[in-house]
Amino acid sequence: MAVGSKIRRRDILAGTLFEVQISMSEKPFEYAISIRLHDTDAAGRLFFAHLFRHAHDAYEALMSSLGFPLAALIREGETLLPLTHAQADYRRPMLHGDRVRVEVRVMEVRRRSFAIGYRFLGEQGETLASARTVHVLINNDPAALPPALHAALSTQLADDSMPP
Amino acid sequence: MAVGSKIRRRDILAGTLFEVQISMSEKPFEYAISIRLHDTDAAGRLFFAHLFRHAHDAYEALMSSLGFPLAALIREGETLLPLTHAQADYRRPMLHGDRVRVEVRVMEVRRRSFAIGYRFLGEQGETLASARTVHVLINNDPAALPPALHAALSTQLADDSMPP
Amino acid sequence: MAVGSKIRRRDILAGTLFEVQISMSEKPFEYAISIRLHDTDAAGRLFFAHLFRHAHDAYEALMSSLGFPLAALIREGETLLPLTHAQADYRRPMLHGDRVRVEVRVMEVRRRSFAIGYRFLGEQGETLASARTVHVLINNDPAALPPALHAALSTQLADDSMPP
Amino acid sequence: MAVGSKIRRRDILAGTLFEVQISMSEKPFEYAISIRLHDTDAAGRLFFAHLFRHAHDAYEALMSSLGFPLAALIREGETLLPLTHAQADYRRPMLHGDRVRVEVRVMEVRRRSFAIGYRFLGEQGETLASARTVHVLINNDPAALPPALHAALSTQLADDSMPP
Repeated sequence: MAVGSKIRRRDILAGTLFEVQISMSEKPFEYAISIRLHDTDAAGRLFFAHLFRHAHDAYEALMSSLGFPLAALIREGETLLPLTHAQADYRRPMLHGDRVRVEVRVMEVRRRSFAIGYRFLGEQGETLASARTVHVLINNDPAALPPALHAALSTQLADDSMPP
Repeated sequence: MAVGSKIRRRDILAGTLFEVQISMSEKPFEYAISIRLHDTDAAGRLFFAHLFRHAHDAYEALMSSLGFPLAALIREGETLLPLTHAQADYRRPMLHGDRVRVEVRVMEVRRRSFAIGYRFLGEQGETLASARTVHVLINNDPAALPPALHAALSTQLADDSMPP
Repeated sequence: MAVGSKIRRRDILAGTLFEVQISMSEKPFEYAISIRLHDTDAAGRLFFAHLFRHAHDAYEALMSSLGFPLAALIREGETLLPLTHAQADYRRPMLHGDRVRVEVRVMEVRRRSFAIGYRFLGEQGETLASARTVHVLINNDPAALPPALHAALSTQLADDSMPP
Repeated sequence: MAVGSKIRRRDILAGTLFEVQISMSEKPFEYAISIRLHDTDAAGRLFFAHLFRHAHDAYEALMSSLGFPLAALIREGETLLPLTHAQADYRRPMLHGDRVRVEVRVMEVRRRSFAIGYRFLGEQGETLASARTVHVLINNDPAALPPALHAALSTQLADDSMPP
């Protein structure tokens, strides 16, 4: 485990208002997709913008697994986390019918924002694409991520040695 | 003009709470689209579900032209018009780069619902596809379409002799 | 999938060119989806056209389970099955975060076409929406569905008493 | 598009195999979109991934205006230009009904790749978002962009002082 992530853990603990059990995950969160017909275009490959749709589905699944389903956050309206940045690199084409594994890691957790990294892997474990999204808190009073969310995200922090 | 649509006009006028000028349009509302790369799939054609996206864009444009932009209706929240039915028939493939003209007609206006018809035409005027959507009013008090909306839709009623 | 009875439908047998074991499934094919953020729109519900995307995903999954993955059919290019018709009825709104079960049934198998029915069910088993797609064979020589595909689809034929 | 100066960029001329008239445009290529209902999500804003769909539509329009419609390139299959990178920054929310102007600029033209920049502007001219896509040539023989395409893209090169 990297030094950086230990420091982050201390920062988090210092900021929490109540005790949180932090178990740093050694394995990234995983999400599986199939490339469907509507994901492809007339060039026979995944249309690039759909990678972001799949990334966001994986992010939604991660947030649910951490106990913060996006649907509830949006309905309650107190903690909105809109994206301020998104990027992707495409290495190999994804074709109709391909089964793709998505590894999801928290790349950074700050007071009011966090970054999620995604790695899309083929059946041989080869990297097909990677992506990154940055989410910023929009709320009124406590100008920081809710401590429980901050702590939950921190459990998914990637090792510095394994950036997507 | 068909007998049916005259009867409809009378029903509408009987129901209006204020005077509305009705000018039955002789030509359908038109909307132009290009088939973009993301509209197509690996089979090289428009993915069928995207026809409905385009139909709804044409419907949004019609509603704006009638003075009832959907965005305002949804924001105000008083007059929601969710779809209860959608259907489409596909006659010829639409390919990447095709320019398609959409004719939009109001096929039926009832007290609490209306039906929109769409005809997708190629550059030679040939019918590529047709579609139909049915929208039902959801609101609280006046259990009927707002009279101004009812009247505006009625101006776009198709002749019975020209169903999409 | 259920063990299934071994009823051989007369119409199928009449059309088959060689002997096929048909095991009529008693339970429909099932497919699970979650309503993701991008499925919804500013009105807070599933955007209607996306129901067809999910229906097609369920159809792709059915075809794979029957041994006819669409990706292979499209790549080989001999048996294209484009949609000629699609329709849906929407009964209850589907909201962000909803878990929806899709029952998929073959509603009709003809010489050169077949119809698939979809029923979208909520967590209490209530019907949220239903849909139907019609697929028509486009190929050159044998102007009929390949017998093995015809037989495989026939194993999924719905009881007449349970139309979606 | 503006009349444009007749500056011939040295790097272009160095690479061209035949004479091309280059008129450097002073104004960026423009493309107009409306934020449609299906562009938004339950949070009431443009779903971030759809920005890339709109960016690609603007890129398709640019390529057509330059005489290189993507549909023809893909059908001919000799000059495929898949994306290797995409990124976007989101500054202000785009809401249902918003009219957005997209400025499209060529940010870089290399031997085998080019970068397109997009700036999304609101009705007051304020920047709502920006994006960038990188496209790389995949072909067999001449391991470089076709000279005519290289030259056409170069006419749209942004001033260094105006990066999106």
